[in-house]
This record gives sequence, structure tokens and C-alpha cells, in this order.
Amino acid sequence: MNSESAKSRLPLWVGPALFLLTTGVVVLLGLLAFSITERRWETQRPAIAIQPIAEWEPDNAAWGANYPREYERYLLTRDDTTRTMFGGSFPRDYLEDDPRQVLLFAGYPFSKEYRQARGHYHSVTDVTQTKRISAKNMSSCWTCKSTDVPKRMAEMGVAEFYATPFSEFVGKITHPIGCQDCHDPKTMNLRITRPALREAFAAMGKDIDQATHQEMRSLVCAQCHVEYYFKDGSYVTLPWAGGLGVEQIIAYYDALSFTDWTHAISKTSIIKSQHPDYELYSAGIHAYGGVACADCHMPYRTEGGVKFTDHHVQSPLLNIANSCAVCHRWGEEEIRSRVEAIQTKVANAKLAAEDVLVRAHFDIAAAMQAGATDEELAAARKLVRHAQYRWDFVSSHNGVGFHAPQECTRILGDSAREAQEARLLVARLLAAKGISAEPKYPDLSTRDRAVEVKNAFESGQPTNLL
Amino acid sequence: MNSESAKSRLPLWVGPALFLLTTGVVVLLGLLAFSITERRWETQRPAIAIQPIAEWEPDNAAWGANYPREYERYLLTRDDTTRTMFGGSFPRDYLEDDPRQVLLFAGYPFSKEYRQARGHYHSVTDVTQTKRISAKNMSSCWTCKSTDVPKRMAEMGVAEFYATPFSEFVGKITHPIGCQDCHDPKTMNLRITRPALREAFAAMGKDIDQATHQEMRSLVCAQCHVEYYFKDGSYVTLPWAGGLGVEQIIAYYDALSFTDWTHAISKTSIIKSQHPDYELYSAGIHAYGGVACADCHMPYRTEGGVKFTDHHVQSPLLNIANSCAVCHRWGEEEIRSRVEAIQTKVANAKLAAEDVLVRAHFDIAAAMQAGATDEELAAARKLVRHAQYRWDFVSSHNGVGFHAPQECTRILGDSAREAQEARLLVARLLAAKGISAEPKYPDLSTRDRAVEVKNAFESGQPTNLL
Repeated sequence: MNSESAKSRLPLWVGPALFLLTTGVVVLLGLLAFSITERRWETQRPAIAIQPIAEWEPDNAAWGANYPREYERYLLTRDDTTRTMFGGSFPRDYLEDDPRQVLLFAGYPFSKEYRQARGHYHSVTDVTQTKRISAKNMSSCWTCKSTDVPKRMAEMGVAEFYATPFSEFVGKITHPIGCQDCHDPKTMNLRITRPALREAFAAMGKDIDQATHQEMRSLVCAQCHVEYYFKDGSYVTLPWAGGLGVEQIIAYYDALSFTDWTHAISKTSIIKSQHPDYELYSAGIHAYGGVACADCHMPYRTEGGVKFTDHHVQSPLLNIANSCAVCHRWGEEEIRSRVEAIQTKVANAKLAAEDVLVRAHFDIAAAMQAGATDEELAAARKLVRHAQYRWDFVSSHNGVGFHAPQECTRILGDSAREAQEARLLVARLLAAKGISAEPKYPDLSTRDRAVEVKNAFESGQPTNLL
Repeated sequence: MNSESAKSRLPLWVGPALFLLTTGVVVLLGLLAFSITERRWETQRPAIAIQPIAEWEPDNAAWGANYPREYERYLLTRDDTTRTMFGGSFPRDYLEDDPRQVLLFAGYPFSKEYRQARGHYHSVTDVTQTKRISAKNMSSCWTCKSTDVPKRMAEMGVAEFYATPFSEFVGKITHPIGCQDCHDPKTMNLRITRPALREAFAAMGKDIDQATHQEMRSLVCAQCHVEYYFKDGSYVTLPWAGGLGVEQIIAYYDALSFTDWTHAISKTSIIKSQHPDYELYSAGIHAYGGVACADCHMPYRTEGGVKFTDHHVQSPLLNIANSCAVCHRWGEEEIRSRVEAIQTKVANAKLAAEDVLVRAHFDIAAAMQAGATDEELAAARKLVRHAQYRWDFVSSHNGVGFHAPQECTRILGDSAREAQEARLLVARLLAAKGISAEPKYPDLSTRDRAVEVKNAFESGQPTNLL
């Protein structure tokens, strides 16, 4: 071995050693990176066993013990925070803000109290305190208000539950809307616990058990956020056999000659619409794109390393970053202003429809005061029945038309046109009785004035309109 | 040097040689990959000089020599292919398909001929052949029909051009809508060649020269695809000073007491709306998202390695894969069905508005036959003026409401409600004259019947409606 070659060459072991060292460092770096992105320790649950949850367990806290994050967020539905874009009262009192509605519901409990619904947490409190519930009501009105309901139904039978007086369960049904309404306690899979939706699917020739998980993320909401009526006085039924559109639903009710109440001013047979949220959502672009209710109202949330569904159910506009902005890469204010522009158009069309609808009721009343018979008024009343249902279909649904902007605007346009047609028929009827002047429409500028007028009609001492 | 160390070690030059070889191969592979993705040879133009194009060059073929791909696609606007989703005639004859329009335009040339517009290539032919142009028309009607117009305007002055009789340029203005209408011949930049749009921007306090390139990709279309009127009888003017919404435009016209014609049936002062495509596009979600007219109607096209703007301007539904589907990753049939669902709602709301509008015209005519004075009818006529303008704003625009579904549906709802209000006023007026029966509405089931009725009113021998 000469000294020159010894200088220019490293010992044989250096190459393999460097290689092994590098390999080792890379492996360790990889493990570090994995541990950082996995955030494994942050996602560790304490080493306690998941407690089994009983079938039909109504107590949300019992579920919360196993699912503390979901439960903690659910409890935030206690919060009354909501949006106030249209000004007016807070929390919103619709009769205070819009006295027309006192008249539109004349003869019906909604004319006494109509407030913006609070979060799910308050469902039992609110249903027992509203002026809309009276001794006449059956337990149908409990159906969507408590996790106690499925258990009661299982024990006593569905029809029997519905037909029990509402008052019988006051103090016995105590747990607000919660976990059990949507989840299977063993698997946590979403499941349908309310018979009406299952029966409505069957009536359409569909099997709800074939729904995909993504569909279920809307359908569990659709157990309650739908239009319904009480068949045979108490059996909660969705009028979907002909389809979910407002025209199909009107045809369904007309075929049954169904009536919720006779209007105190125009003596029209009115159908009350109940928040057809799922129906209108189904007509909109988000449903078309496969976006579920939960995607916007219960978006995913991350705490530490855990991604979970946010059970603080609320308006997406109170949580734009996690809901809208996940797909729509605009600024929050841009999103808000777009939504509010859409809602403002619907809100204005709604008020325009109300203005002519209120007058249509008064016009018919004026004709009655002029001696018009029920037979003479039948065509006008039928138009008002349909016009009011169309209006209420949009008015009673949540979201001020955002779920289906074109559809809601279309429905309100049809409502106003029909109400106007009724007024035209009545004008000709009055003309035949020698009356050409416009009826003397009462002042409805405040709720108090509107209530006075309503009371006068309800008590059979109506204001003279001629 | 012992034989053992000679065996276990490679010669010193092998390492560097391998390194250099690898480097060389990588560089060559990179060049190959670049050449493939660049498709350089496919994009090579033949080695000829770009021919200079003169300022105001009207001949599209002269531009086409330099830009053969764009020109070739532009020539396809010769094709009459269009959509026929709503059935009826093809190419569409609106008066044949919808005889109500014969009556709505009674007393105005649109009641004589109203067909679906053909592609840009036919603009000169069609404007010289339509029955709507008569000896009374000025050259304002040439403004949007030919690349010859800017040159003429530059030569003789804008106001002077507009005020020249239309007939004077027949046979002299020959080149259809084309390159020069939107492009600067030196730079090919988009530019505004029609004064009305520039002036409308100025009236709103805006400088159109500050528009971005993406905005220009809509504004060059907005030179013609807008609502306009002839100020002082011939000066093409966009009624935008108060804004682009239908309410603002109505207020603008009302402030001028502007009238296009007096309706032959109801003697109402009518404003004719002219395809407010840009106005309604501006109210829609695509404009909100920064999507330009050209993005959908002239989407990018690739031929060989060249990506260029497709100058075959047409409905995006005839080219879904390159227009809608670039952003909306749905199947073509899904996209088409979504668009057609939206358009069907608008089309139905449009017909509903027409039904009541036609009757409103007849109701007013009936009141005139019963001796009502202009003063008595003023309020009803004002409502009909506005209702008809709203209807026409949507009806005359291209796209059957797709550019702004909620806005179009809202406008049509307002139109119908207002027309109904007019009918109500007239019913009370007739009542005051002792008439309570509905007017005898004529049969309008076919175009021929509608034309008969229209002719009777136009000739002063109206059908008796009482």
C-alpha cells in the first residue's frame, strides 16, 4: 500500500456508514412528521370504556358522556343568537314586525303568537309555553319536540300516541330535541325515528331505508322540517303522495277538501303551511349538487386533531368560514351580501303578496256585507285559499327563500296574481250589487290596530267595509 | 498496489463519468418532455408576415387572413342551429307560437314580425329584410348590425349618422357584425366602438376605459346586448343613469314621459324593451362570480397545440363540454336539465303574466267602450305601462331567464300583480258605469285570430267587448 493511494481514498466503511446514518435520520424525520400531522396524542380519548346507550335513550347527557365534543356543541343551541338582517324585533316577533300577519291568520292561533323559533335545546320549554297550544291539542304537537317521543311511540303505538291529549304528557316529556332523534345508540348511524317521513316515502313508492348516508344527512332533518297535517285530527302526515312541489301539495289537500281553519274575515277554508324546509331545499341548487342540510347547518369542525360534525345547528351565516366558504372561496362579507341580496328579493315579494292577500280577505268580507252568498264567493275563496297557501309555503319556511331563490320568488308571484284575481272577481260581484267603490280597508299600521280589527271580525262584530 | 485493493475499488473516473452521463440523460429527457407538452411545431404559423389591418377595417375576411382560426369559427355563426326546448316553430316565430304577443304589440311593428334572431353573420341581411323596418326608420337601426358603422360614424359624426334615413345606407352597409366591432386592429385588444355604452358609463359617473380585460369580455357584448331607446328620435341611448335594475329604468323613462308607441287596444303609452341581456346578466350569479359573457358564449377552444377564443358565438347549451362543464363538473344531460328546469319556470311565469296583461288591455278597451275618460283610465294605464315593460324586459332578453333566474321570476311576478291591479281598477270603473260582467274577451287561440282582433283595433273598428 503506497501513501498516495491511502490519502486519496477513504476507508471502505465510511460509505456504508454514511448511508445507514442518512437512512436512520430520514426514518426518524418521517416519524416526527407523521406524529405532527397525525396529532395522535391530541386525539386520544381517555382510557375509559364507551358506556352502552340504551335503545330510545332520551337523555342527551347520557349520550354526551360518550361523545363530549358533539354534546358540548349541541348545548350551544341554547344560545338565542340569530340574524337580524331585516331589522325589527329581536328575537323576532313576526306579528310585531309585520301586522299584516295578524290578519292573514285571523281565526287561528298564529294570529296570537308567532315568534322566530329558538334553538333545539328550547323545544320542550317553548312548546309548553306558546299561546298556540291549548286544551284542544293532541300529542301530535309533541312529535318533533322531544327525544322522549320515539320511546312513548314504541310503548303505546304511534296512532295512540298522536291521539293522546297534549296536556297528558306535560311534565312527563322533558328532553328537548337531541341525539336520539337522529342516531342509532348502538352504531351511531343516522336513522329515521319519526314515522311520518317513512310513511311519506312509502306513499311515493320509495323505500327510505335505501337512502345513502349523504341523503340521510338531510333526511334526519326532514323528519320535522317539512310540511305536514294531522290526518283524522291527530295522525301526523306529510302531503307528499303527489310530489314535493307546492302545486302537487295543493292538489293533495284539495282532493281531501282539507281545511285547517275557516278564515275569520273572508270565511275562506285555509290550509296552514308548516315550514316546508326540506321541500324547498329539494327545489334548490344545493340539493341538486348533493349538498346535505348538515353540510351547511352542521359543518365539520376541528378541535385539536379531531374532525367532527358540529352539532351546534344554526344558520350558516353565523358560521360562514366553516360552511359556505368551504366551497365558495369568497370573502365572508361577499358571501353574506350575496345571500342577503337573494333574501331581500324574497322578503319584498312576500310583503307584496301579503298586501294583496290581506285586501283579498277584506274584499270578500265586503262582498259578504253587501249580501253576497257563499255560492257567489266560492270561486274567489278558492283563489284566496290557494294564494294564501302559496304565500305561507314560502313565509313559513326557514331561510327567507335562500334554499330555492327562484322557486320561492315564483311561488310568491303566483300567490299575488291569484289573490288579485280573487279581488277582481269580488269587484265584479260588488258591481252586480251596485257597489263600485273600493272597500274601506282598515288601518293595519301597528300590531295593536291589526289585533283590534281581527278581534272585531272574530267576535262577529266586523268593521263596516262598505 | 496489491491485487486485493485493485479488485475491490473501481477506477477513479467511473463515478464522475456516471454522474455526467445521468445528468446528460436527464437534460435530454426534460427537453423531450418540454417539446411534447409545448407542442411547439403544431403551433407554428407559416412563415408569412401578419398583414397590417387598417383602422375601422369593416371586412371580416381581411382580419381573417391574419387570424384564420378565429375567422373560421366566426363563419359558423352562419349556421341557424339553435335550441327548441319549448317546442313550437323552428327557427322560432314568436307570434306563431304565442299569439298573445300579437295583441301585446298591437299598434307596433313587433306585432307583424317577431322571430328568433339568427347568428351574427346574418345581421345585415336580416335587418334589411324584416317587416319591422320601414321608410320611417333612421340609421340608429344600423348601429348594431355592421362593422361598417364605426367608420361611417367617424366620417360623418355620431349624431349625424343616427339621424340619416335607414334606407340611405341599404346596399352601402354590407359587412355583418364581426371583428372590428370588438377589436383594435393594431393590438387586437378589446375596445368599445359604439358610443352609447361609453356614454351610459359616463352618465353613471364611470369611466369605461378603466374596465379590466375580464370586464371587457362582457362589455364588448354590452355595446349591443342592452336595453336602449332613441333619444330625440334617433340618438341611441341606454337608460342607465339611475342604475341597471328594471325599477330604475322604469323611473328613468317615466321621468322623460318616454313612449315608444300608444297601444292600439288600451291606448296605453308603452315602452318597448330591447333585449336587456347585460342588465339581467349583471343581476345573476355568473356576473357576481366574475364570469364574462365570452366565458360561456365564446369559451376557449383547442386545435392542435393552440388555445384560442371560440368565435362561434352561440348558446352555451350547444357547447356544454367547453362552456358550462369547465366549471360545473356534471354530466352534460345533468347540466342541460338543470338549465331547462330554470328556464321552464321563467317561461311559465312569462305566459302567466301575458295572460293577465292581454286581459288588462282588453279591460281598459272595454271601459273606453263604456265611455270611460282618459283621466279615469290614467291610473290603470300607468300600471299596464309598467307591467308590460317588466314583462317585456324579461321576454325580450335572451336566455329565457337563465342569466338571472330569481330576478326574472321576481320581475314577472311584479308584472302580473300590477296588471291585475289595473284590471281591478277598471272593474270598479265599469261598476260605476253600471257594468258588472266580465268583458267579452276575444278568441286568441291562433295567430290568425289574434291578427284579426288586432287589425280591428288598429283600424279603429274594435270588437265590441261589452
